Formats: sequence, C-alpha cells, structure tokens
Amino acid sequence: MEHVTGRWGVLAMVALLDGTTRFNALRRRVDGISEKMLSQTLQALERDGLVLREARPTIPPHVEYSLTSLGRDVADKLFKLIELLESRMPEVMAARASHEKRT
Amino acid sequence: MEHVTGRWGVLAMVALLDGTTRFNALRRRVDGISEKMLSQTLQALERDGLVLREARPTIPPHVEYSLTSLGRDVADKLFKLIELLESRMPEVMAARASHEKRT
Repeated sequence: MEHVTGRWGVLAMVALLDGTTRFNALRRRVDGISEKMLSQTLQALERDGLVLREARPTIPPHVEYSLTSLGRDVADKLFKLIELLESRMPEVMAARASHEKRT
Repeated sequence: MEHVTGRWGVLAMVALLDGTTRFNALRRRVDGISEKMLSQTLQALERDGLVLREARPTIPPHVEYSLTSLGRDVADKLFKLIELLESRMPEVMAARASHEKRT
C-alpha cells in the first residue's frame, strides 16, 4: 500500500474528500503534481478499489474521479493524520530548533 | 514529514507504541530494516520531537527509545490507518483481481 501513504496518493485522496472531481480540477488541487504522476497515482488508487473513475458520455466527453466507500474511510484517516501533524507542527519545529542547538 | 509517513518511520513508531524499547529489540520488531536505516529513521524521528532517545548509564551502557507525547498521538493515528487497511485488504485484493480481468 505504498502509494496510499506516498505523498501523491495521500494528497489525491484527501483532495477527493471534497467530492467528485474532474482530472484537471484535481490536478489544480494537488499542488505540484505532474499530469503523468497524477494519472499514475489515480490508476493505482483505482486498481486498489479506493478511487472510482467514471467516463461521462457528454460532448466533449469527460472523466470524473471519486472516492469509493473504502477510499473514503482511508482518506478520512489520512486527513485526521494530516490535521494532527499540521496542528502540532510548531512542536516539531521547536524540537528541530532545539535539536540543532544540541548538535 | 515524509519520514513519518514513509514505510520505516511508520513501522518504527507503531513498534514503539508497545513502550520503551532498546535499539536491537526495536530492530527485531521492525522486520526487514537494516541497522543503518533504523538508526537514520530514529534520528529523524528524534529530531522532529516524535521519539525520545535516552542513554542509560548502566554497565554495559544501553540506549532506549520511546515515543514523546506528540509521537504517541501520531503513532495512534498511523496505527488506526494500518488497522483499517489490514481489515479491508480483502476488498483491495478483490478490486485488484477485478481490475486485472478488465484490462
């Protein structure tokens, strides 16, 4: 499950917590990801049953991505982890500063 | 925070949920990790204030590792994520099998 906990898998899944999203919109939300990497990330998540890919027969056709039920459960837990890390980041920064002083 | 969500950081922190552990005992618990990689992982976790390293002045001297309060909070969330992924792994495997049939 390396791609779930990898940087891009995490960011793509958390971005999809907001709901069904088209490829380009998703790419804008996952800051810094290349088209190729997002495509590979989504394929891996789809293969594992975490993300659903649906091609809409519109004109022009477009493709939408959403979380499956399992994907939502995983993304919820990832989001909680990120929230915790963000909220405690000052402690991490203080620990780093203190560590640098000592070494 | 890549090392927190990286494979070895996750495994080391979850192993430390059981309590204070010496280096070699930790290495036995984190299956497949090299001495050098465990040492680097623990240094990074210590630097970020997630793991506490204590050298005991025993004869022979030995070094113990434990989670800080922040480290415990993070490890708890990581453990919940791993538990979820493990319990839902049959769904993931079924999704993969179904995906292979279609491609």
